[in-house]
Amino acid sequence: MPNGAQALMKTLVDAGVEVCFSNPGTSEMHFVAALDDEPKMRAVLALFEGVATGAADGYARMADKPAATLLHLGCGLGNGLANLHNARKGKVPIVNIVGDHATYHVPLDAQLQSDIETVARNVSPGFVRTSKATAELGRDTADAIAAARGYPGQVATLILPADVSWGDGGVAAPPPPLPAPKLASADTVQAIAKVLQSGRKVALLLGCRALREPALLASAKLAAKHGIKVLAEVFPTRLERGAGLPTVERIAYLAELAGVQLNGLDDLILVDAKPPVSFFAYPGKASELVPKTCNVHVLAKPDEDVAGSLQAVVDATGAGSTTPVLQPAGRPGRPRGRLTAEKVCKAVGHLLPERAIIVDEAITSGLMLPMMTAGAPRHDLITLTGGAIGQGLPNAIGAAIACPDRPVIALIGDGTAMYTIQALWTMAREHLNVTAIIFNNRSYSVLNVELERVGAERIGDKARSQLDLNGPNLEFARLAQGMGVHGTRADTAEDFVKAFEYALAHPGPHLIEAVVPESLSGAKRAILPHLLRALPKLPAPLARALKRKLAP
Amino acid sequence: MPNGAQALMKTLVDAGVEVCFSNPGTSEMHFVAALDDEPKMRAVLALFEGVATGAADGYARMADKPAATLLHLGCGLGNGLANLHNARKGKVPIVNIVGDHATYHVPLDAQLQSDIETVARNVSPGFVRTSKATAELGRDTADAIAAARGYPGQVATLILPADVSWGDGGVAAPPPPLPAPKLASADTVQAIAKVLQSGRKVALLLGCRALREPALLASAKLAAKHGIKVLAEVFPTRLERGAGLPTVERIAYLAELAGVQLNGLDDLILVDAKPPVSFFAYPGKASELVPKTCNVHVLAKPDEDVAGSLQAVVDATGAGSTTPVLQPAGRPGRPRGRLTAEKVCKAVGHLLPERAIIVDEAITSGLMLPMMTAGAPRHDLITLTGGAIGQGLPNAIGAAIACPDRPVIALIGDGTAMYTIQALWTMAREHLNVTAIIFNNRSYSVLNVELERVGAERIGDKARSQLDLNGPNLEFARLAQGMGVHGTRADTAEDFVKAFEYALAHPGPHLIEAVVPESLSGAKRAILPHLLRALPKLPAPLARALKRKLAP
Repeated sequence: MPNGAQALMKTLVDAGVEVCFSNPGTSEMHFVAALDDEPKMRAVLALFEGVATGAADGYARMADKPAATLLHLGCGLGNGLANLHNARKGKVPIVNIVGDHATYHVPLDAQLQSDIETVARNVSPGFVRTSKATAELGRDTADAIAAARGYPGQVATLILPADVSWGDGGVAAPPPPLPAPKLASADTVQAIAKVLQSGRKVALLLGCRALREPALLASAKLAAKHGIKVLAEVFPTRLERGAGLPTVERIAYLAELAGVQLNGLDDLILVDAKPPVSFFAYPGKASELVPKTCNVHVLAKPDEDVAGSLQAVVDATGAGSTTPVLQPAGRPGRPRGRLTAEKVCKAVGHLLPERAIIVDEAITSGLMLPMMTAGAPRHDLITLTGGAIGQGLPNAIGAAIACPDRPVIALIGDGTAMYTIQALWTMAREHLNVTAIIFNNRSYSVLNVELERVGAERIGDKARSQLDLNGPNLEFARLAQGMGVHGTRADTAEDFVKAFEYALAHPGPHLIEAVVPESLSGAKRAILPHLLRALPKLPAPLARALKRKLAP
Repeated sequence: MPNGAQALMKTLVDAGVEVCFSNPGTSEMHFVAALDDEPKMRAVLALFEGVATGAADGYARMADKPAATLLHLGCGLGNGLANLHNARKGKVPIVNIVGDHATYHVPLDAQLQSDIETVARNVSPGFVRTSKATAELGRDTADAIAAARGYPGQVATLILPADVSWGDGGVAAPPPPLPAPKLASADTVQAIAKVLQSGRKVALLLGCRALREPALLASAKLAAKHGIKVLAEVFPTRLERGAGLPTVERIAYLAELAGVQLNGLDDLILVDAKPPVSFFAYPGKASELVPKTCNVHVLAKPDEDVAGSLQAVVDATGAGSTTPVLQPAGRPGRPRGRLTAEKVCKAVGHLLPERAIIVDEAITSGLMLPMMTAGAPRHDLITLTGGAIGQGLPNAIGAAIACPDRPVIALIGDGTAMYTIQALWTMAREHLNVTAIIFNNRSYSVLNVELERVGAERIGDKARSQLDLNGPNLEFARLAQGMGVHGTRADTAEDFVKAFEYALAHPGPHLIEAVVPESLSGAKRAILPHLLRALPKLPAPLARALKRKLAP
């Protein structure tokens, strides 16, 4: 009869959970030993838990099924928390396995004792369970899998005491049924159809699962038929885009710009999305972005079949035969001269290979990326769903493991890259086809903007130094080399293009350090807050024109 | 009138909290701006929150007063959790400041929204407070300081909503009074004196504050007078040791060895310590290490004056004039030949400068460190109090900032170093006199031992690969260079000694990568579990002799 860990492992692989991103310790040794009993389980070691959890997140976004994690006690969970938060906000399924002390060891308050369930609840509000007995572990695992891959997807945390794991008498559980989400009700579909046909100013706001091809196509048909706008949430979990697909306009990160996008709308229809709010609060500004005069409707909630519900609306309004507007193919030219963040984005658009996966955590440096890649070959875009930086490099690991035949291009800010820089080692160890592009502008550029946006006016040297990554300069190519990743550094557009072409032509991983000036020069930065303040008051056409200059 | 952040800052510095280890985001921008209003506040930027919290821990251990942290929302707190856990277990005072969204932004569930209080409770069971109003922020800060530096020291978490921080009408609070811990009661002192005079086999077990010179001297007098043993907890918060100080025998990490240390004791007297338990649970083994026949007494709890209480016992038993046994000066010779972990420890003992601070997170590679440095010049030793690895490099930052005139030597395992490798950048930025020695044995060596100790017998390649850091090899000297730290690599004892001499003679920071074989060879590793199993059954003198071969 198998022990607990073996039953757990079999339950996982039988349900199709075939990758485990791990950072184990002593209490997880029986899980580790059980890896050898399950040829179908791939174990990917990370040097830091935030890498493991972020990789599980990226994997599930691309594989459309969960991976498992393996974390060591409450402290390991703490280290993995930020990227589990991002997964939670992106409604991404993860079977989050956290080892614990043996049940009889817990009351002794040994050095590593902490309250795991409490910490887990923060990222797993829907499913936290400590398995109490070896005989129940298989069933607990199946329940965790079912919870993770439900609608909406979630981080399901299974806490695994060492003695439950090593005990004899494990029983593998059969795979839980796949979820079958419901369509929006006929009444809802009719009501939404009426709004679309009203002739008012209407926008669809698509989130999460609504940003995949079937839902995008249905939305584009509705847009063409009824003259409505299609918006996407600011940070998509996974957005299918590029030549041949419908385009959507992402809500801007800067609340001032988002205000312009939503200005004048009569009706906003939510599809697996929430009413947009500003990322942060700012003194004297409202956090809600939807105009007070705009009616908010819900077509499909995250627990419903969003593509099917959109299709039902298409059928109800007779938009089925409408030709949607699709993005024509087109790439920007080859950039030249001194490297800037914009030229990096241009080079990515110029060279993006077929079926690429773009991981965008470039913060300010990536502002031009959406525009530069709009007409590039069809690709997937993964973004920072929960705002907890340090997601991009780990996400790239998971995406590359989920889709080994697709190139992964990760664009990452310098400050951001340092949160989970250990990811590079796992990329090298697993020979992943990832090209990581690090924008080295030597500052927390976004915070320089935010400092002024929050109205912290009198800014001295000590404050500035908190946002500044100069002294010492980070050398990312060297960091990559120290972890076994091929790393190069580019100061000119020509060098960058050469390095990127090399990376695309040779098996990865690669890291290209793009040395760029701060995305917003001092002068632009000084103007920006005033400009943003003025924006909502400007005549709409002027505001839109300015917005096009400023926004992604 | 100051705003909230300015009142907070003034309250901190007036109470002597003069260093802030920070990793801020948008919601903390007013705190950042307020730095320039307080010349007495030093702000030290970290690239990762675990570095900031670990630095605050190391600082407080050496400064004997708390620093502040500045973390960004719940995710930043999550990233800092592991080292806050270590601080909690070491009873180390930290004023842990976590920025939050503006109070009115919280209900909107924006991207970075999470439940901060819940996560904080794990490491701050004694003090978590969200400041509700600008006028109260000064008082809340004073309360947090008082809680942090109480007896025992603790991590006090103050959650700082952005609008409370930016609001007008802040009022700085006067410094809270310093704590005045009580002595053990006269009855307790008399009872302990009687135990010491009983002629039975008695040991003192010293923890936390009892490992500083006054308590050590009092204990050594009692040892000399009454023929008792003096033990120290396995992972001291801060241990004063070296030539001229009394020695204490640390409880071994391996439960089997600890069992031998405690074997045959009639009475164990706790001084700011708990009854020792094994670090982890092992199948079929008891977790409690104190023999069932041993009486456990408490002289002083963590909320009492431990040195004063020990002195009261000295007075009660007339040991005041007894001459304590002190460690004679003495250093090991210069190591030669192929480098091993033991030779690194030998070189450290051979060269340790006066008044050094040793941070020991070398796990298996540091086994010989205590022996090799026992007679070195007087120094402080900081260890992994909570078992959450990734503490050493951040602790070294804090220790160096607390004691700028003392050299800090941090001995770190390779696996461990990678958890908070970003610490190197802060060391370079702040020009800290730290020499980080990384034992590069290319494995999680301790886990190879643990895998067998937990009885996970059939170990295959996949399991082994989870404990193995080969492929790609980490190159720590290069990683150091990539973050602006002078890094060298040593394969021979001669090279290591040369690099260490250079590091001691030149301003830091330095990193020396010591390339060493796994601390326990395959053969030794295979024997170890059997040996450990046999140990408690062997005749005491033989077990002790073996223990001396195996233990620190």
